Amino acid sequence: MSSKSKKHRSPCPISSSLDLFGDRWTLLILRDVILFDRHRYRDFLAAPEGIASNILSDRLKRLEAAGLITKSPDPADRRQVIYEATDKGAALKPVMLEIAAWGAAHGESGAPAEFAERYYADRARYRQDHRSLFENFGPTDA
Amino acid sequence: MSSKSKKHRSPCPISSSLDLFGDRWTLLILRDVILFDRHRYRDFLAAPEGIASNILSDRLKRLEAAGLITKSPDPADRRQVIYEATDKGAALKPVMLEIAAWGAAHGESGAPAEFAERYYADRARYRQDHRSLFENFGPTDA
Repeated sequence: MSSKSKKHRSPCPISSSLDLFGDRWTLLILRDVILFDRHRYRDFLAAPEGIASNILSDRLKRLEAAGLITKSPDPADRRQVIYEATDKGAALKPVMLEIAAWGAAHGESGAPAEFAERYYADRARYRQDHRSLFENFGPTDA
Repeated sequence: MSSKSKKHRSPCPISSSLDLFGDRWTLLILRDVILFDRHRYRDFLAAPEGIASNILSDRLKRLEAAGLITKSPDPADRRQVIYEATDKGAALKPVMLEIAAWGAAHGESGAPAEFAERYYADRARYRQDHRSLFENFGPTDA
């Protein structure tokens, strides 16, 4: 169930966390689930980064095994599956917001520096309410 | 000079940041430089995660090319080289602290939950003074 059974490279909590999500794709799936309310396989596949289906499938399995997301039948269509963040997965929101702000602040993305300024001015507020942070900087810009 | 010339997968600042450091090693080198005041190749190589020399060498080059670290002769021994974080690199400290706290809070490491509790109780303080956060939880535990 827990990834504690996995062999971690060291006891360092940064290293151990990267053992879980230290790749170019895993946090993007969590971004979609946690920040953008996307919950379906096809929505992850449609993200602008163009994740390959085999990578998406592998990362979803790993996220589920690590207790970061759950998979359940879609109440609207039980042949479909929806993915949701567990509390442990949702607790990565501050990590993602810090990464997003850093990228915006340092010209590493299409997001304006203003996005980072807004976040840095009131981190606690936006950790609670990330939607108001994304106003005018939404994922649809992608 | 800047990694802006690199092709990013999307304009998303999370995705673009992960294009730079979304792997299992890059943030560990930055951890050593920024949080633990390690500045020499041999010190990175000696970190408990056991980075391979070819990976370390590659990641240092990428970090320098991306403007996150600089390389210069060691004033104490000019045949040696020291690596230091640029302002842009040092600005990743909050990202690393959030990752560390998450790992500690969720049992993904050898760090106790108390480490995360301390950080979450006063994030602003520890972003300024990370050394006091690491008291009793130092890297030497590794």
